[in-house]
Amino acid sequence: MPSQKAPRLEVCFSPLLLDLYDTENAIVVIIDVFRATSTIAAALHNGAKCVIPVSSVPECIALGEQIKNSITAGERDGKVAEGLQYGNSPSEYPRSFIAGKTLVLTTTNGTRLLHMVKGAAAIITGSFVNLTAVCEYLKAQNHNVLLACASWKDRFNLEDSLFAGAVIDAVAEHFDINCDSSRAALHLYQRAKGAPVIDFLKDSAHYLRLSAYGLESDMEYCATPDLHPVVPILHGNELVVYKG
Amino acid sequence: MPSQKAPRLEVCFSPLLLDLYDTENAIVVIIDVFRATSTIAAALHNGAKCVIPVSSVPECIALGEQIKNSITAGERDGKVAEGLQYGNSPSEYPRSFIAGKTLVLTTTNGTRLLHMVKGAAAIITGSFVNLTAVCEYLKAQNHNVLLACASWKDRFNLEDSLFAGAVIDAVAEHFDINCDSSRAALHLYQRAKGAPVIDFLKDSAHYLRLSAYGLESDMEYCATPDLHPVVPILHGNELVVYKG
Repeated sequence: MPSQKAPRLEVCFSPLLLDLYDTENAIVVIIDVFRATSTIAAALHNGAKCVIPVSSVPECIALGEQIKNSITAGERDGKVAEGLQYGNSPSEYPRSFIAGKTLVLTTTNGTRLLHMVKGAAAIITGSFVNLTAVCEYLKAQNHNVLLACASWKDRFNLEDSLFAGAVIDAVAEHFDINCDSSRAALHLYQRAKGAPVIDFLKDSAHYLRLSAYGLESDMEYCATPDLHPVVPILHGNELVVYKG
Repeated sequence: MPSQKAPRLEVCFSPLLLDLYDTENAIVVIIDVFRATSTIAAALHNGAKCVIPVSSVPECIALGEQIKNSITAGERDGKVAEGLQYGNSPSEYPRSFIAGKTLVLTTTNGTRLLHMVKGAAAIITGSFVNLTAVCEYLKAQNHNVLLACASWKDRFNLEDSLFAGAVIDAVAEHFDINCDSSRAALHLYQRAKGAPVIDFLKDSAHYLRLSAYGLESDMEYCATPDLHPVVPILHGNELVVYKG
């Protein structure tokens, strides 16, 4: 029997580079470690019915009014946005609060990227809090993968690329990888490995920015591996837990 | 006396990201290690009168016809392009051949990026062959800097970002650096440091691509620090040696 060719894995460092990649034939992993994709995993793992990512505050308010038993959430400049109920912190969504509810969430970078991806085989979201679950899912699918970093206002960021490196570190032998972004992401992860993830990120631009709002414990939460072992997958406009 | 604020240094990983940066108030360093900016440094160090970077083969031919004592050069797919005289290899331009001549050079990634930069305080070119000269120049200017990677068809590449990291490693204390691209580039260089640069690049996409054309010795040349200690600077449409 001829050996099967391994599927391809690539990394995209910025939404502005997305057109360089073939998303139509890939599973796309949306990565927005600080904090959208960490919060999505937390809410779903804690029993949220689904998470609906939306681009704007008015859209968030409108959907919240339409959907029964829903929560509207989103921040601008580190504060709950006017007209919304809750923020972007994963710690705001314990089971006692979010179970059975629909979370309508607006974030800037992660949501925008998610909506930019067209015609993917599947769209899932990843962060350190669901690292192993994402890796196991990708290994099981045996399909091309694009790890898509939300970045910060289209600029390369350290936390999303570090997460891409962590995924590659775990799944590399299952994929054909010939992409310098992937190599660089893996190098970053190999630099960080062996110490808590957050230590590597403490001089990143985003850490410094969010620290100014007192959000250090949030970021430590987002950088903790496997707190929320679920795979959020997009069905229509809803992120739900992948059931296999 | 109040201490002066250090100038800013940033790294841009792809021409597609260039608009995110303020090039108008910066010295822009064009980086195309394999091989445009290595060849430019070699030709100028070996006495070329100037190097004129052009975008297309027809433009290269036309300028070659207009300019006395000029050489036209450029490759497509690893071979001298039809209608041109020489290739992109830095080793093709020894002093015995190039001294006193004008080199009209067309390359895909590096030349395109150079022409995209508008209104910079200065445009210079860098590669490992002129690493220390570039660093000394940047330290002496005391001005904002953008290290601009030519990349490969707009995709992040390892060799140009590694060079950016090598520059940062040498000049960091003279600049204010709060940019995750710079942090990542420095991490890459710290991974590579202590061994020949080329060892780190041997599994890069560009190395693998150019190896298929038998260009391994060219790439080793391009990755050798300080073979050609000059700073090529753009005056009008000509790159000439910076004289201080």
